[in-house]
Amino acid sequence: MRHVIGIDIGGTTVKLGLFTAEGTLVSSTSFKTPYGDAAALFDLIAEHCAKIAAENGVALEGCAAGISVPGPVTADGMLEKAVNLGIYGVWPAKELEMRLSGVRVAAGNDANYAALGELWQGAGKGCGDAVFAILGTGIGGAVISGGRLISGVHGLGGELGHICVEPDEPEACGCGGHGCMEQYASATGIARVANRAVAAGCGGALAELPEITAKEVFDLAKAGDKAALVCARKSMDYLGRGLAGVCYVTDPEIVIIGGGVSMAGEFLLELLVPSFKKYAKLSDKHPRFVLAGLGGSAGMYGSAKAALDLL
Amino acid sequence: MRHVIGIDIGGTTVKLGLFTAEGTLVSSTSFKTPYGDAAALFDLIAEHCAKIAAENGVALEGCAAGISVPGPVTADGMLEKAVNLGIYGVWPAKELEMRLSGVRVAAGNDANYAALGELWQGAGKGCGDAVFAILGTGIGGAVISGGRLISGVHGLGGELGHICVEPDEPEACGCGGHGCMEQYASATGIARVANRAVAAGCGGALAELPEITAKEVFDLAKAGDKAALVCARKSMDYLGRGLAGVCYVTDPEIVIIGGGVSMAGEFLLELLVPSFKKYAKLSDKHPRFVLAGLGGSAGMYGSAKAALDLL
Repeated sequence: MRHVIGIDIGGTTVKLGLFTAEGTLVSSTSFKTPYGDAAALFDLIAEHCAKIAAENGVALEGCAAGISVPGPVTADGMLEKAVNLGIYGVWPAKELEMRLSGVRVAAGNDANYAALGELWQGAGKGCGDAVFAILGTGIGGAVISGGRLISGVHGLGGELGHICVEPDEPEACGCGGHGCMEQYASATGIARVANRAVAAGCGGALAELPEITAKEVFDLAKAGDKAALVCARKSMDYLGRGLAGVCYVTDPEIVIIGGGVSMAGEFLLELLVPSFKKYAKLSDKHPRFVLAGLGGSAGMYGSAKAALDLL
Repeated sequence: MRHVIGIDIGGTTVKLGLFTAEGTLVSSTSFKTPYGDAAALFDLIAEHCAKIAAENGVALEGCAAGISVPGPVTADGMLEKAVNLGIYGVWPAKELEMRLSGVRVAAGNDANYAALGELWQGAGKGCGDAVFAILGTGIGGAVISGGRLISGVHGLGGELGHICVEPDEPEACGCGGHGCMEQYASATGIARVANRAVAAGCGGALAELPEITAKEVFDLAKAGDKAALVCARKSMDYLGRGLAGVCYVTDPEIVIIGGGVSMAGEFLLELLVPSFKKYAKLSDKHPRFVLAGLGGSAGMYGSAKAALDLL
């Protein structure tokens, strides 16, 4: 029986899972990500790969592995810059192949691989045309068309968070642009929209909070607080506008909403979908909207799927 | 030697060309498009295919043909609605295959096939990752990633003209939305932006014209008329904003600008590129911007390329 190893390198933790070719997670482990030391990082990963294979009676030789990294990966496999890892100009697949003889390795961007995972074993199982928006501190994204990840010529495909949805925004985004989608609909962006409402004197119960988070905005909105609902709706209107533009580009079957903010659940989709439709008037054939299903394991699953494609 | 036939069905004219597999146009012809009669249309096309093959000593059997149609084509090949042709619910490839025994036929949307043509023998020769924006009466578009056309699950991929770039627009677009890119940067849209400037009393020389066209806006702007330059810049800013969003989705190598408006030439790109960069701040790796190279023949070339892929 063939096996693959899915590895998700995050800023704080590396998650590593052994999967069957059918997508069953046999065993998983995790360890703290070393910072700023690529050699130590890949030594540790290689060690854990050998260990998890041995513990489960799987011969490492003949396996394949996939690595999800927090940064863009160029078409030829280079991770140019991973700020959260403090490493630069590394070829992750080559690093691991050097350490694990006979194992073929694939590497890709975390958002892209999380999307692969969701389409393999999560919310988009069996679907080959999807848009995945990950609402976290920023907004990550991934686009899959005809079963193929669109990573683009510079690895910038699916960087949905920086689509301009508000040209008149006075504040600059981290990227230097103005009015990026993530300035309104990421966790930070939602809190920002709410803080602006408070500053304008129309924050309602939000004004009573010591610090506003996206979770609180959605919780209050769900509980019927009008001011919070106005804020949540505003953020989801920006998201709907941006995603409608994305769907005019690739016309997907489904749109998957993931990341911490998606914990707001179906309520989020109830606000998002009407806004999306307002900006997608050309046809009444719309994608289905679903919440991500694999949570923090999506990257590990997607890495395993990328590995499977090497076998 | 293998040959293919490229057929471009337009609202007024059907263009038909015989090509070698290497992309050389051997011979071409055209005829008036019959309106509202699919049977008559495909009878005429079949007749002209047989004729052009015979005249050039090519055996029709063993050839392949491609058909470009002015409307979205579903994944299973149906042209649901072609308003300009007055035909509905037709499978163009099947219609032609029925009439030409032994000839395999592909069919696709005109913008998509024009893009295929530009990448095969035009401005994007040899490039597999491109965005094509066709600035005509409206804005058509096509997106190619990894050498593959992204037509989407409902044939709506690349409908770039309806991306919202101005949420505060009071007037509705033909699609029912507000602030679509084609409301500002199509030929009609550019004239509309200029007419608004005239109505606001800041039209300069534009105010003297009996009727404003996009060509006149660009001609006056090139000649140094300040008011016209402001208008042209404004239209190209909207286009740059929309295209920056598109490029965040697919990260292409080149952006090709075609359609009647692109006759404004390099001057158009000089206005467009700085705007694009303003909305694409995340990375300094930008696509190259080029003008389309095949003009009105792009659809015929692209159809031939689609046919070639069937051989």
